[in-house]
Amino acid sequence: MARAGEEALIARYFAPLSGPGAEGLRDDAASLTPTPGHDLVVTADAVVAGIHYFPDDPPGSIAVKALGVNLSDLAAKGAVPRGFLLTLALPDDWTEAWLSAFAERLGEASRAHGCPLLGGDTVRSGGPALIGVTAFGEVPAGAMLRRQAARAGDRLCVSGSIGDAALGLALRLAPDPALAASHCDVLLDRYLHPRPRLALVPALRRHARAAMDVSDGLAGDLHKMLAGTGLTARIDVPAVPLSTAAGAAIARDRSRLATALTGGDDYEILCAVPPDSVAAFLADAQAAGVPAAEIGTVTAGDGPPCFLDAQGREITFTRASFSHF
Amino acid sequence: MARAGEEALIARYFAPLSGPGAEGLRDDAASLTPTPGHDLVVTADAVVAGIHYFPDDPPGSIAVKALGVNLSDLAAKGAVPRGFLLTLALPDDWTEAWLSAFAERLGEASRAHGCPLLGGDTVRSGGPALIGVTAFGEVPAGAMLRRQAARAGDRLCVSGSIGDAALGLALRLAPDPALAASHCDVLLDRYLHPRPRLALVPALRRHARAAMDVSDGLAGDLHKMLAGTGLTARIDVPAVPLSTAAGAAIARDRSRLATALTGGDDYEILCAVPPDSVAAFLADAQAAGVPAAEIGTVTAGDGPPCFLDAQGREITFTRASFSHF
Repeated sequence: MARAGEEALIARYFAPLSGPGAEGLRDDAASLTPTPGHDLVVTADAVVAGIHYFPDDPPGSIAVKALGVNLSDLAAKGAVPRGFLLTLALPDDWTEAWLSAFAERLGEASRAHGCPLLGGDTVRSGGPALIGVTAFGEVPAGAMLRRQAARAGDRLCVSGSIGDAALGLALRLAPDPALAASHCDVLLDRYLHPRPRLALVPALRRHARAAMDVSDGLAGDLHKMLAGTGLTARIDVPAVPLSTAAGAAIARDRSRLATALTGGDDYEILCAVPPDSVAAFLADAQAAGVPAAEIGTVTAGDGPPCFLDAQGREITFTRASFSHF
Repeated sequence: MARAGEEALIARYFAPLSGPGAEGLRDDAASLTPTPGHDLVVTADAVVAGIHYFPDDPPGSIAVKALGVNLSDLAAKGAVPRGFLLTLALPDDWTEAWLSAFAERLGEASRAHGCPLLGGDTVRSGGPALIGVTAFGEVPAGAMLRRQAARAGDRLCVSGSIGDAALGLALRLAPDPALAASHCDVLLDRYLHPRPRLALVPALRRHARAAMDVSDGLAGDLHKMLAGTGLTARIDVPAVPLSTAAGAAIARDRSRLATALTGGDDYEILCAVPPDSVAAFLADAQAAGVPAAEIGTVTAGDGPPCFLDAQGREITFTRASFSHF
């Protein structure tokens, strides 16, 4: 089948996703009217076939991941989404069937999160596909949550459950027939489909002092939150929330605990909360439908955070952080 | 030589380019405080090695192009730059020398245009390099210049000179030893180094009714400006401004005129100006240091614009628009 040119592709697959100010994607730029008294929060993350996802992943799943990893950053900054730009670099063998499925699921995710498409660019990649997203959100003026703003004594909290995606990836690469299929499915799905924790934004704005999303593993990202600030942390590993599926996987092989704590793609929120706000934060998170848990404490000091087991012994990792680069 | 990881690269090469709100590139997002009463204008364009530039182009030239093509879009929309995000997808054989030269010239261009780096992402491309830029600008509320807002009777004007970059590319692919080296150098440089016409923004805001930048060739972009609006245009080809170098190249080979009028990479501004504002627009452009010229008229009608030679005969093109896709 003959494939359409760039203009026709945009009109057919992407214009239906566009929002106000996007001029139906017929212009070279979009305008965005900020809410008075608010700052814009901007972030860009790209995913590449064969590096951030498997080239044969369903195109809809790739769309969910490309948008989701960016919305996860907005959520961590306490921002409400306003829109996104899409840079789509297609391999030579792209098909309209792939693009159609990609755009359809991208549109569903975009509508679900109130984050319309504002524009972008479509190019040939000359290699694997690359999907770059720039996401825009808003926060009240001056209120963007910083990564490095924790203080000694703050409690560390995380949303949801940690390690599911990393275990899902590990099981995809090396299936474990002894693990229940239902558990495997949960973990594989968590790897494929990040769920940005936007519902947590009000609770974060109200209570968190510092926040980031967990994308490169809890251990490494926590280190990034504190490195160079004169602070470190103690983490109570038994308090780190695990899904039932992750718990079952780790029960079969204790070495998977390190995978869960250091592997990437959680897209949960890690935040530092003043001690007297922790109860209110956890209650607000629960009320917003996002489970959250207190997992440790920020302390004065240098060096990487200390992960302690139930007996108070330090757990060491051979590789603290995941890097795709 | 061992190559640094992503965090070290960012700290070494890109943090020095960062502006207010970028948190020194140590966060997952940046905040941008809009000027009250203004809209944000957002645009994203990517350039790919082997498609939009030659892989062995100097890294600094690639940086100038990647940022310049985006700032050209902002200029055409009447926007003043506020900052940019950079998505850098590197091939497996990237070197720190390349990256250092790229970042240095990117910083120079960023400072020259008052457009600091706010953040971005660095990934492996798994193929050729891809440099994606998202640029942010500002316009007074509601004042973004649209591409498709011309009216019948408006005069069409362009900045600078048309066709230099396309002729430069043609000469790079097929050198013409009979053309003076000084002319070749001008044309080759215009292909390598787009110069976004940001100085034209005040004159555009004051006088233009519709505007876009010429990136895919004058003929094709003019068609995009008018297609589907019930309007077309007559262009007086002898009035289309040519540089001395382009004039010399075309004098040697008349077929190069079509290359100049349909080839890409001009990064000049095409705008529609009400007839009684043309003189003031041209004077304001001149005063801003950007030559501009009136080249034709918007007329009622459908179909592609009509290009007329000095005798009023229509010139036809075998390929009206350039497409990298």
